[in-house]
Amino acid sequence: MIYLDNAATTIKKPPEVLDAVMAAMSGLGNASRGAHAGALDASRAVYDARVKAAAFFGCPRPDHVAFTSNSTEALNVAICGTLRPGDHVITTALEHNSVLRPLYRLEAEQGVALDIVGADPGGRVDYGAFERLIRPQTRAIVCTHASNLTGICLDVAYIGAIARRHGVLFIVDASQSAGAIPIHMTAMGIDILCFTGHKGLMGPQGTGGLCVREGVDIRPLKVGGTGVHTYSKEQPSQWPTRLEAGTLNAHGIAGLSAAFDFLERTGLDAIMEKESALLYRFLRGIGCIDGIEVYGAPPHLTASRPASANPCINRSAADGATPTCLPRATAEGPHTAVCALNIRDRDPAWVADELSETYGIATRAGAHCAPLMHRALGTEGRGAVRFSFSYFTTEDEIDAAIDALGEIAR
Amino acid sequence: MIYLDNAATTIKKPPEVLDAVMAAMSGLGNASRGAHAGALDASRAVYDARVKAAAFFGCPRPDHVAFTSNSTEALNVAICGTLRPGDHVITTALEHNSVLRPLYRLEAEQGVALDIVGADPGGRVDYGAFERLIRPQTRAIVCTHASNLTGICLDVAYIGAIARRHGVLFIVDASQSAGAIPIHMTAMGIDILCFTGHKGLMGPQGTGGLCVREGVDIRPLKVGGTGVHTYSKEQPSQWPTRLEAGTLNAHGIAGLSAAFDFLERTGLDAIMEKESALLYRFLRGIGCIDGIEVYGAPPHLTASRPASANPCINRSAADGATPTCLPRATAEGPHTAVCALNIRDRDPAWVADELSETYGIATRAGAHCAPLMHRALGTEGRGAVRFSFSYFTTEDEIDAAIDALGEIAR
Repeated sequence: MIYLDNAATTIKKPPEVLDAVMAAMSGLGNASRGAHAGALDASRAVYDARVKAAAFFGCPRPDHVAFTSNSTEALNVAICGTLRPGDHVITTALEHNSVLRPLYRLEAEQGVALDIVGADPGGRVDYGAFERLIRPQTRAIVCTHASNLTGICLDVAYIGAIARRHGVLFIVDASQSAGAIPIHMTAMGIDILCFTGHKGLMGPQGTGGLCVREGVDIRPLKVGGTGVHTYSKEQPSQWPTRLEAGTLNAHGIAGLSAAFDFLERTGLDAIMEKESALLYRFLRGIGCIDGIEVYGAPPHLTASRPASANPCINRSAADGATPTCLPRATAEGPHTAVCALNIRDRDPAWVADELSETYGIATRAGAHCAPLMHRALGTEGRGAVRFSFSYFTTEDEIDAAIDALGEIAR
Repeated sequence: MIYLDNAATTIKKPPEVLDAVMAAMSGLGNASRGAHAGALDASRAVYDARVKAAAFFGCPRPDHVAFTSNSTEALNVAICGTLRPGDHVITTALEHNSVLRPLYRLEAEQGVALDIVGADPGGRVDYGAFERLIRPQTRAIVCTHASNLTGICLDVAYIGAIARRHGVLFIVDASQSAGAIPIHMTAMGIDILCFTGHKGLMGPQGTGGLCVREGVDIRPLKVGGTGVHTYSKEQPSQWPTRLEAGTLNAHGIAGLSAAFDFLERTGLDAIMEKESALLYRFLRGIGCIDGIEVYGAPPHLTASRPASANPCINRSAADGATPTCLPRATAEGPHTAVCALNIRDRDPAWVADELSETYGIATRAGAHCAPLMHRALGTEGRGAVRFSFSYFTTEDEIDAAIDALGEIAR
């Protein structure tokens, strides 16, 4: 199988991730439950992962990294834990249902007011709208860092600056960007960063979390045993316990920890360079095929972003240092290694099936849990076929996909 | 390390559990996301695990098995998803904070009324209280199947019959009993069974779930992407999708699936026999040591349980067949392989440290997230040392623990 569905989950993991999970399953006790070697080993493994996640995402306090089972859970915690009845919140048309559905639910059940920054048919948002939509009741801006459908990245540093200026919480969904695009919470003005472990971070499924700026108050989504303050009727307020009821997935977290090591050793610059090259090879290749329409491909972010906007900042610009421009995937801004397309009027589900059955190429057709983005792109009725690459994708695999698309399009 | 903290997490897993996780991490895509081989393999792996869980717990519908990251999450889903403002709910003093804190929260924030069936100094509940406490507003009885502190099992079939008779939901926390004591939802009258994968089931951390009787309506705790009905603003209502927003931990679930195979092949009767024998060997051994006080050890369940009560039913009594009495761990009823004790006035934390540091024996001291049970036992101020055994514990390990306690007590 040529696996080009890495935006759903990366299937090839660094070998040390598997080794770490095996070692954890063979020897770790329950983290934060007891003081014997097995329990302490688990606690240390989990804390190590917090430290690595904090460093990787520019979160000053490792104890403000709370682990969840995926980014959907992290987003539910962040959104439901900060918004209250009467609040106003702003999001975008690029969002995944993991952002939209919690917001819709609060709108319907809690009287939270919701505004959505639209996108044009190229999938580009109107950056001016964020500031225009802010009002006294605005409690938060919630947005994705990168569209799971098109790979377009939002300029979160620019949006973060708006949020800071207006004293509004800034919650970012990094499901598609973590491990693919540099993220630095402090420099980007992010208050809560939600990430998943099994996509670009190349860790196990069942891992993810949220990094929270010190001082942000979040109510827990679930409450229960914590191993501390047993006699308190309420969930303890200390970090990260307040958001981590029940036994942590120390087995998966140990794997995620090893994944952070791999990312650190490999370097995000190298990963971006490799993935960008794969994306451009693919785009160049399919550019010669008649009848293929690509949605939101670079160049992008050109429409309404002010010239001063800084689409991404370098991770080396840590803790207050002046952010510097990243080497961009395009002249216009970063883009993850994702490409959504259709072939004339072919049903994308048929195209994806043909790719899978005839060519052994795994992609994903359909609506990709991004309803408003499909509306913006004009693909609501049919969806699109999404190709998504990883650091482990090879040029041969890209070429095979191009050849297959060429044959299907003929 | 002699690991006697299996009530926190089992550290020794069947080899096929590790193998299954490795295979899953090497080849599974994202379950229910796409139609290529990788995604379909993940979907099948997850569905297989649902089928096995349903069979293991006597849940008629595999699609009503929803996976979570642990039993705490399952309990939060079950409790918060069924109770509404104005409802009355009954629980017991045996509960873990994973039951108590969600209930306390609903009591404080949603006006849910809560009654707690007390326990005597032997950790035995007053079975007559359940029926006495039921009133027209009573929506649910929520209780554990087995105390995580003493190993005492509640007669859930008896309580389930009361719940059925009064049309009250019956939610059971099987964190300590799943894989240790037979459970059959239908025969026991359980509406929602919450379980964790990493304890008696011997699966990976990060797994668990809830089995729900058909017809029970549960609102989801978290909402988001599901891979289906992308354009619906609400979480889809179909099972099990309604309770499973976001990417499932297919890696962990594949391991849990293998664990169910191991349990099925080994047989719960054999596991119970082995664990009971280990517990009695331990109890007999420490019975000769002066100054040791054991809390809630068998014989138990003697106080107020009506003679007709049926403490446990055999799994072979499936789907409406007449439940039959289990071979019991004692003449009084089943008991998990857990023993809480103190040595005269020694600080239990010191005892556990001494066991760990001097003898290499892992136990757990403290309050074990069971505040009301400690109050009932009279150990609120100091806690207790908990020994908990698994199918893989050896007689030599039991004897080493007895010898160590003998030396410490002298």
